[in-house]
Amino acid sequence: MELLKQRILNDGRVKEGNILKVETFLNHQMDIALLDEIGAEFARRFSGAPITKILTIEASGIGIAAIASRYFGSVPVIFAKKTKSKNLDGELLVTKVHSFTKGVTYDVQISKHLLTEDDTVLIIDDFLAKGQALLGLIDLVEQAGAKLAGCGIVIEKTFQEGGGLIRNKGIRVESLAMISSIENGEVHFDGE
Amino acid sequence: MELLKQRILNDGRVKEGNILKVETFLNHQMDIALLDEIGAEFARRFSGAPITKILTIEASGIGIAAIASRYFGSVPVIFAKKTKSKNLDGELLVTKVHSFTKGVTYDVQISKHLLTEDDTVLIIDDFLAKGQALLGLIDLVEQAGAKLAGCGIVIEKTFQEGGGLIRNKGIRVESLAMISSIENGEVHFDGE
Repeated sequence: MELLKQRILNDGRVKEGNILKVETFLNHQMDIALLDEIGAEFARRFSGAPITKILTIEASGIGIAAIASRYFGSVPVIFAKKTKSKNLDGELLVTKVHSFTKGVTYDVQISKHLLTEDDTVLIIDDFLAKGQALLGLIDLVEQAGAKLAGCGIVIEKTFQEGGGLIRNKGIRVESLAMISSIENGEVHFDGE
Repeated sequence: MELLKQRILNDGRVKEGNILKVETFLNHQMDIALLDEIGAEFARRFSGAPITKILTIEASGIGIAAIASRYFGSVPVIFAKKTKSKNLDGELLVTKVHSFTKGVTYDVQISKHLLTEDDTVLIIDDFLAKGQALLGLIDLVEQAGAKLAGCGIVIEKTFQEGGGLIRNKGIRVESLAMISSIENGEVHFDGE
């Protein structure tokens, strides 16, 4: 998605340790016009898939998934929770997700009754790197017995293993910007 | 907002302790068509206010604010973070928010450069009860020297003190459903 790649080059900032920061338009401040374009692009890529629910994880996925839903007939969006919230009750589906950044493993959960075997789910998230969060969401879909249409990712770091892990399971992953390397403060995309 | 009140009566569930649960359409699973109506209603109520940014707090406010932004010319949405996130860096604005539910006080923060004195801010959140989170967001707007157009709330519990505290500061609060009591498993709205 050229618009997104240009935005990453223009407004993303590469910090010490070759960490890409996109907090001015994606995961702290959100550019809603850009999210509209991203939602439309996910809809083009998954056109024909009979998606009944979108699943994401708090917090950065929520805005992206909410806007994207409008391009899928405004299907309900579920955001999985990283903490045992008072907004959850009744029976839960729970999966373990390991955060390499924070060095902890935490429970990710959704209310069981929200996903059923009648659902076809699109998973949406902002980043795909080591893939742990995404594998957790996939596990929740499988626990529910729902069908998985695939995963829509805004930015994939293809130099990390997550995308390969998930595609090797036969799961469709559509990433709108695929970053092959971040070196010396410069972002490079796949195919360049 | 009649549609919202009906939805609360139809799909909200009152649990032990007279706690209202709206996780099937607002703060765990989100009904995007309903959020569209909510966004349009916020825009009607704040029409004429020269809003340049929407501020909310993770996690439940994010979807509501993202969809609402589309009715305010797709102004950027900032979501304040409850934890020191790797997505934040540089200088921060920080405020303390006390959670009565969890019995803890935590730091809520935004990147300082995202809000300036040139901004006119609309704060959006899902619930207003004791008002602590909203007071924290208001403090962040004041720290930034930005103007505050007001607060758009989906559900206010008017039997708790938050709405009064904030309106007494001269701040405009527009709540789309105002609940005057929850007793014996029944929800009652203001003016009924």
